[in-house]
Amino acid sequence: MSASARIGVTGLAVMGRNLARNFARSGFTVALHNRTEARTRELVEEFGDEGDFVPTSSPEEFVAALERPRCLVAMVKAGGPTDAVLDRFAGLLEPGDVLVDGGNAHFEDTRRREAALRERGVHFVGTGISGGEEGALLGPSIMPGGSAESYRALGPMLEKIAARAPDGTPCTAHMGPDGAGHFVKMVHNGIEYADMQLIAEAYDLLRKAAGLAPAEIAEVFRGWNRGRLDSYLIEITAEVLTHTDADTGLPFVDVVADRAEQKGTGRWTVQTALDLGVPVPGIAQAVFARSQSGHTRLRTAAAALPGPEAAPSGAARGRMTDGEAARFAEQVEQSLYASKVISYAQGWDMVRAGSEEYGWGIDLASVAAVWRAGCIIRAAFLDRIRAAFTERPGLPTLLADPAFARELGEAQDDWRRTVAAATRHGVPVPGMSGALAYYDGLRAARLPAALTQAQRDYFGAHTYRRTDREGTFHTRWGGDRAEVRTD
Amino acid sequence: MSASARIGVTGLAVMGRNLARNFARSGFTVALHNRTEARTRELVEEFGDEGDFVPTSSPEEFVAALERPRCLVAMVKAGGPTDAVLDRFAGLLEPGDVLVDGGNAHFEDTRRREAALRERGVHFVGTGISGGEEGALLGPSIMPGGSAESYRALGPMLEKIAARAPDGTPCTAHMGPDGAGHFVKMVHNGIEYADMQLIAEAYDLLRKAAGLAPAEIAEVFRGWNRGRLDSYLIEITAEVLTHTDADTGLPFVDVVADRAEQKGTGRWTVQTALDLGVPVPGIAQAVFARSQSGHTRLRTAAAALPGPEAAPSGAARGRMTDGEAARFAEQVEQSLYASKVISYAQGWDMVRAGSEEYGWGIDLASVAAVWRAGCIIRAAFLDRIRAAFTERPGLPTLLADPAFARELGEAQDDWRRTVAAATRHGVPVPGMSGALAYYDGLRAARLPAALTQAQRDYFGAHTYRRTDREGTFHTRWGGDRAEVRTD
Repeated sequence: MSASARIGVTGLAVMGRNLARNFARSGFTVALHNRTEARTRELVEEFGDEGDFVPTSSPEEFVAALERPRCLVAMVKAGGPTDAVLDRFAGLLEPGDVLVDGGNAHFEDTRRREAALRERGVHFVGTGISGGEEGALLGPSIMPGGSAESYRALGPMLEKIAARAPDGTPCTAHMGPDGAGHFVKMVHNGIEYADMQLIAEAYDLLRKAAGLAPAEIAEVFRGWNRGRLDSYLIEITAEVLTHTDADTGLPFVDVVADRAEQKGTGRWTVQTALDLGVPVPGIAQAVFARSQSGHTRLRTAAAALPGPEAAPSGAARGRMTDGEAARFAEQVEQSLYASKVISYAQGWDMVRAGSEEYGWGIDLASVAAVWRAGCIIRAAFLDRIRAAFTERPGLPTLLADPAFARELGEAQDDWRRTVAAATRHGVPVPGMSGALAYYDGLRAARLPAALTQAQRDYFGAHTYRRTDREGTFHTRWGGDRAEVRTD
Repeated sequence: MSASARIGVTGLAVMGRNLARNFARSGFTVALHNRTEARTRELVEEFGDEGDFVPTSSPEEFVAALERPRCLVAMVKAGGPTDAVLDRFAGLLEPGDVLVDGGNAHFEDTRRREAALRERGVHFVGTGISGGEEGALLGPSIMPGGSAESYRALGPMLEKIAARAPDGTPCTAHMGPDGAGHFVKMVHNGIEYADMQLIAEAYDLLRKAAGLAPAEIAEVFRGWNRGRLDSYLIEITAEVLTHTDADTGLPFVDVVADRAEQKGTGRWTVQTALDLGVPVPGIAQAVFARSQSGHTRLRTAAAALPGPEAAPSGAARGRMTDGEAARFAEQVEQSLYASKVISYAQGWDMVRAGSEEYGWGIDLASVAAVWRAGCIIRAAFLDRIRAAFTERPGLPTLLADPAFARELGEAQDDWRRTVAAATRHGVPVPGMSGALAYYDGLRAARLPAALTQAQRDYFGAHTYRRTDREGTFHTRWGGDRAEVRTD
């Protein structure tokens, strides 16, 4: 077989299959390989007329079908299967070839794999691909890491298959060396968790505190989707809330079990943020809210705990009047928006911290740019984040951007009212109240951390710093309570 | 040298030295060893009259000085130094000997070390020791893991040197195999973080919302310390708040830099809880609040963000009247107490989950019993937790204990008022508001997690369960929106 394919895809489950079709539909000849050959044949039989496919039946044949420098995309499960693919292919590749892992690998694994292949002169590219099955086919958001050289070979192809932002720019860019791409994808997923939690809280407030029906709430979300909250997640929330269960005739959301599952990337995000020392309470609260919802044993045991006397459940209180409900929905929108800004600020803090820790040099504006379309958190909002970091690449936090700061200032009264209302009504809003606490903590001139630090010195001689001069100090609490300098 | 010592301590920095003295003062002959011999000599010179010490100058001599089965306690830094001690001593020990690691090791490291030494027939005991320098000398809380056999040799000695609960029981017990002891100690430290954060929030509220001075707040804490919050941390809070800085004449807490540091065990606790799928938002919020306080770059950048118009800072508002302040302090006490119950409930959930995951069989009542004295979170409160789990060993959560549930029900109105007041005043209370959200989330008959799960099915075909029948389902959102069963 002569080397005729520009790109190859190995691993032809639904994501790999759709990505291969996307490459073919974009005009690239695509070599195909799958561990069990049947899937390769199926793809060509079903979708062969979409473009030029070169089906192959062994790794050797697959590699031989690729033009140099060879570009291979592995779309297999993270963990063992990815290592197996690397083991199988590494020996077949030559210096200058590019091996892409498009699965959901942990960025630390990607760093390890990149280092191992770099020794053989092979470029290993760990890339985040967001947008699910549909995105893979019609245009995902693509976040490749790896060497700059690998991007020269690969980038033009990724730019052809990626989603396009409203301004026509492809939603892909070189994120940085080794693990940068998978790291950025991890943060994307963490933000996605936070976004979904905040939306769930907004829905819960409208349902339980305002007493609105799901279809009415869908209308509220449709309205929000025409404003600054315009986004895929708000759009599909309205779709879900409009849907009626065919079996029971009930609102669909009422027949779904209220136990949210997770696949682990939210957990990775929080664990990594803890290692980096970056506070990401918005993501953490979302992860914990999901695990709490799934803890049937705890929920059953705690079901009898009393709620607020003053405000029984929505059903018992009845529905707000239309005017009250409209005003309340405005408050909730302010609270949702402000909390969303906070969780995105935390996400970008984390990207910056990761980039500094690993020397990736990630362009913060570029991260926002590639998320504008194709991925789950795609939103009009992201173009504003892109603009903020483009204008001021050294912006220390999104909250220091004048436009976002102004919006938070305008939102805060309603934000506070919403959290207070939730508190009064017994509606759990860990995301919104946590975001507000983060906001108030960050702007505080003095934090009670001074007391914490003094306590640490008291019981563990951990020392403290002073506000008025340099140095570290300890007070002899058990003795004469004199202060001694310890540095 | 004849084998004459019942126990040996190697690593004679302040913790090791005090532990060795504690053994000697309790009547045991203690062999001493330190990498640099000067420390060994110093200990004997300074404290030789406190008991029987056997100073030694090499690992071989140290081991030879011990009666069989030999019990050696290593008090060295976690990580490399601990591994170095193990490497040095493992070859000198015989089957049946007991090697104790009293440092702050991660329980996973302890599991690894225990497995390695078990192959040689040596009992490795990873033990948590809490109480700091003073505790080591006068009676710490001791949480040993390892084999039941090791506890038969070691336990009677630990019981002699441990702190004593008010009822006279020694604050030590066999926690379970391999990593159980260090795991329990890790959870202790996580709870300590949460406790300290809640105390900091209570102080901040009294300071900023009520406008009280530190000395006045100290009085409030002294009052609380006579009630159900009676604990070491409340006691030392009052001490710290009473203290005046000699240099400036200002309240000490006002000259301490408000950047709280951490040594990493809080982070470990949250990371492990995430692995176990246990929601511990109280501990996470405390860890994040500390890291937020230390982020000078973010705080400086966000300092200009506006606070609530309605309630400027305490100073500008002035002080509440005495009557108002007293009523407000009662509210804050309810909020602090209820939030504390929540974070302890989360801690015990975590101990249970760890015990189940690793097959440790930890006695939940026993954990509370050994924390009643000697450790940082020692408190009257812990005896009630011990009683709750003694009475009902299968209690699914502390919140299901009738007495705690009743108190939470009684506290909730004031708890809600406090969180609402903090929200209005712009005082960050991530711990208290997070605890309330956890409470409201756990007791909710329906959570908006149903919406989250429906969204996941919409964008990722992740499927959902139904409330009315078994199975997993997917709705064809992109097509006819019919439901298909997927299991």
